[in-house]
Amino acid sequence: MPTFSKQTYTDRRERLRQQLSDGLLLFFGNEESPMNYTDNCYPFRQDSNFLYFFGIDRPGLSAVIDLDNNHEIIFGDELTITDIVWTGPQATISEMASQVGINETRASKQLAELLINADKSDRSIHYLPPYRSNNLFKISGWFDISSRKVNELASKEFIKAIVTLRSHKSPEEIDEMVKAVNISRKMHLKAQEMCLSGVIESQVSGALHEIAIGEGGQFAYPPIITINGQTLHNHHYGNTLKKGQVLLVDAGAEAPSHYAGDITRSFPVDGSFTNQQREVYSTVLTAENNAIANCKPGITYKEIHESAMLDLAEGLKDMGVMKGDMSEAVEQGAHALFCPHGLGHMIGLDVHDMEDLGEDLVGYSNEVKRSEQFGKKSLRLGRSLEEGFVFTVEPGIYFIPELIDIWQSENKFKEFIDYGALSKFRGLGGIRIEDNVLITANGSQVIGEPIPKSLKVIEQ
Amino acid sequence: MPTFSKQTYTDRRERLRQQLSDGLLLFFGNEESPMNYTDNCYPFRQDSNFLYFFGIDRPGLSAVIDLDNNHEIIFGDELTITDIVWTGPQATISEMASQVGINETRASKQLAELLINADKSDRSIHYLPPYRSNNLFKISGWFDISSRKVNELASKEFIKAIVTLRSHKSPEEIDEMVKAVNISRKMHLKAQEMCLSGVIESQVSGALHEIAIGEGGQFAYPPIITINGQTLHNHHYGNTLKKGQVLLVDAGAEAPSHYAGDITRSFPVDGSFTNQQREVYSTVLTAENNAIANCKPGITYKEIHESAMLDLAEGLKDMGVMKGDMSEAVEQGAHALFCPHGLGHMIGLDVHDMEDLGEDLVGYSNEVKRSEQFGKKSLRLGRSLEEGFVFTVEPGIYFIPELIDIWQSENKFKEFIDYGALSKFRGLGGIRIEDNVLITANGSQVIGEPIPKSLKVIEQ
Repeated sequence: MPTFSKQTYTDRRERLRQQLSDGLLLFFGNEESPMNYTDNCYPFRQDSNFLYFFGIDRPGLSAVIDLDNNHEIIFGDELTITDIVWTGPQATISEMASQVGINETRASKQLAELLINADKSDRSIHYLPPYRSNNLFKISGWFDISSRKVNELASKEFIKAIVTLRSHKSPEEIDEMVKAVNISRKMHLKAQEMCLSGVIESQVSGALHEIAIGEGGQFAYPPIITINGQTLHNHHYGNTLKKGQVLLVDAGAEAPSHYAGDITRSFPVDGSFTNQQREVYSTVLTAENNAIANCKPGITYKEIHESAMLDLAEGLKDMGVMKGDMSEAVEQGAHALFCPHGLGHMIGLDVHDMEDLGEDLVGYSNEVKRSEQFGKKSLRLGRSLEEGFVFTVEPGIYFIPELIDIWQSENKFKEFIDYGALSKFRGLGGIRIEDNVLITANGSQVIGEPIPKSLKVIEQ
Repeated sequence: MPTFSKQTYTDRRERLRQQLSDGLLLFFGNEESPMNYTDNCYPFRQDSNFLYFFGIDRPGLSAVIDLDNNHEIIFGDELTITDIVWTGPQATISEMASQVGINETRASKQLAELLINADKSDRSIHYLPPYRSNNLFKISGWFDISSRKVNELASKEFIKAIVTLRSHKSPEEIDEMVKAVNISRKMHLKAQEMCLSGVIESQVSGALHEIAIGEGGQFAYPPIITINGQTLHNHHYGNTLKKGQVLLVDAGAEAPSHYAGDITRSFPVDGSFTNQQREVYSTVLTAENNAIANCKPGITYKEIHESAMLDLAEGLKDMGVMKGDMSEAVEQGAHALFCPHGLGHMIGLDVHDMEDLGEDLVGYSNEVKRSEQFGKKSLRLGRSLEEGFVFTVEPGIYFIPELIDIWQSENKFKEFIDYGALSKFRGLGGIRIEDNVLITANGSQVIGEPIPKSLKVIEQ
């Protein structure tokens, strides 16, 4: 069954149509995704745009909205009795389509025909940038576009119309996101409980899978569960936890409705931080709490990011690792040695919401452009915040030996960085704290039940 | 680190080269596989042929064996310092290549150049049938082959040479398969423990994920955990277990080395079968035990399949559901109403081993051809068994309402099926029992520690 009512889906499509003038809108639902041969597939994940406008969670479908003739059509092939022996009885495509307010369905093979004819008649065909190669090659073949040009020729008008809709979460969407965060909360409470010397990272991962999957959902993204938090995208789970280390857990559930949670906590193994770790943790927590408190409609997320980076830098100065004027240091990008990533990103049906549509079209605007400076250029969300936006706030401090060595050898920012003092922090790893924040009419709120993060509770 | 020694990989490639005369052998390693946008990927799964011959478990690699010049080359791109900030320090491609006995590595973009030049010089290029569309379109583009023809033009010679090697498992491969079965065993013991009324299928799935992932591996295939065992490929996990039902669990671990286990057990909810269920269970267990006992070098698996189907049919006759001469019934395919699938398939690095290379080239031979009869045509393995083969033995009995209704309305095989008596079994669902079997010099053995399946233990 679709997550929301028929009215929700017809309203969303109506609001989409109002933003676009003419032509055809093409939506690819996803196909199954093979692991090691055609019939052994990963768990099916429907395309998020398809889910948002059509709500049907089954592989092999696509849809067209014909703006000129006011048609909405779902394309797909009904199961045969042979299929049903293997898959069990299923709702027909027309039954599913009617649950989301669509009355016309056609066989899959008719999609190419419709689109190729429309293309020959010089009608506008709006498509989205494909992120799976089967769709890329379909577009390339149907419209005779070089595969290298397919993404670039995707419809900006169509993308912007979707971004406008999906950026503002409705109350019923927020309910789903709260569910995702609350499942993620259970995962983090479990991780904290398991954060003892002798435990292997993969055992923690297994226990978190039990929760995400046991609740009828999935992981929203491959979790990071590591004592090497300084490696930002670490998907290795082979280390055994030792006293004195910090376990960084960046793990979020995808609710059964496919809305994502994205939560990070950093736990001391065996329950207590070293003094150095405690200083770093407190700095990160202050930056996170301040950033959340500062979020409100009208402020740009770029400002929130810069202010959080300043908090981190001030903390690092107190530790003796940075020196000089921290406003100047952050302006020039010296802090990025310790936090080379952005403060956060939109979240919704995707953990990096709508990233398939293009980061800049989602996170930036005519008024706020992306920086090219190391660190700041990795900020995915920069634009002015509006009521209904949901995004992550996730400052962190990392000691990345490979990066430190390069900067030190170049004497980079030596007016702001005390490389001698820094050497004492070299093995500390990384500490990050992350929550999911909703912009309300007057301010912001962290969604879901609170997930412990105070020093006192984390050190239990 | 590769699973096996350098010698193992160089030997495998040497034995491969000996079977082929000239030209280039192309191996695609796998790329990351996107879920809902380019950078949010499923857990990486390396291609099994690449793993078998090159052992490197990292995305974005490919390899060529040049038979004419005796070159072995791995293609891939080294990480930049920017990558290392995100991924942490990693072995270089040349370091990894040298661990598996390859001395030459080149940048990825040089692969197309090498192959296109070789193609222009009319050299033979042997490639395998691609199962991921990015590789299909690469081949289509490089060699100017219509995408519809790519699979058909794959090299039969190359496929057959690989099948010859991979079909016979070495002792070190069997050790890895035993590990996979032993992890799967823990999963099934856990499932049995949880098989109580009130539990939701997804909770069982979560608990099994904890084990598969906690042991550092994965699932070898999407598990079936269902009270609707009559649906053969059931990936729905939303039902709550009730007394009187049977929970069918078809779940196998992939060991960290990527070798697969594939085990099925059928548990009574709350520990006791109904009389009908007990009769069906006993019949399936007898068929499974007999089939395993009959496996030995020289006998065809088609014979084993037919004999197991006869055991099932005889049991169904004892229950009053079938009637007449059961040899005749099985010969004509009447039993397939109750078991429409084959008795088993090869297993190894893939759960359906080498299925990407083509089912018939793996499971059949010049002497043993695939049947076209309903039921028998789904048998993936038919050929004569040889020492070192590992495969599944997995008989089952299912009551599939949709199929029963069609057959009954057509009066199909009414001389062998008592549709009146059958109606009393209609809601029973499905029961399957599956183990993984190795052909030894004189017979066969179930691999791994025994996983309980006797009626007495299953009903505890």
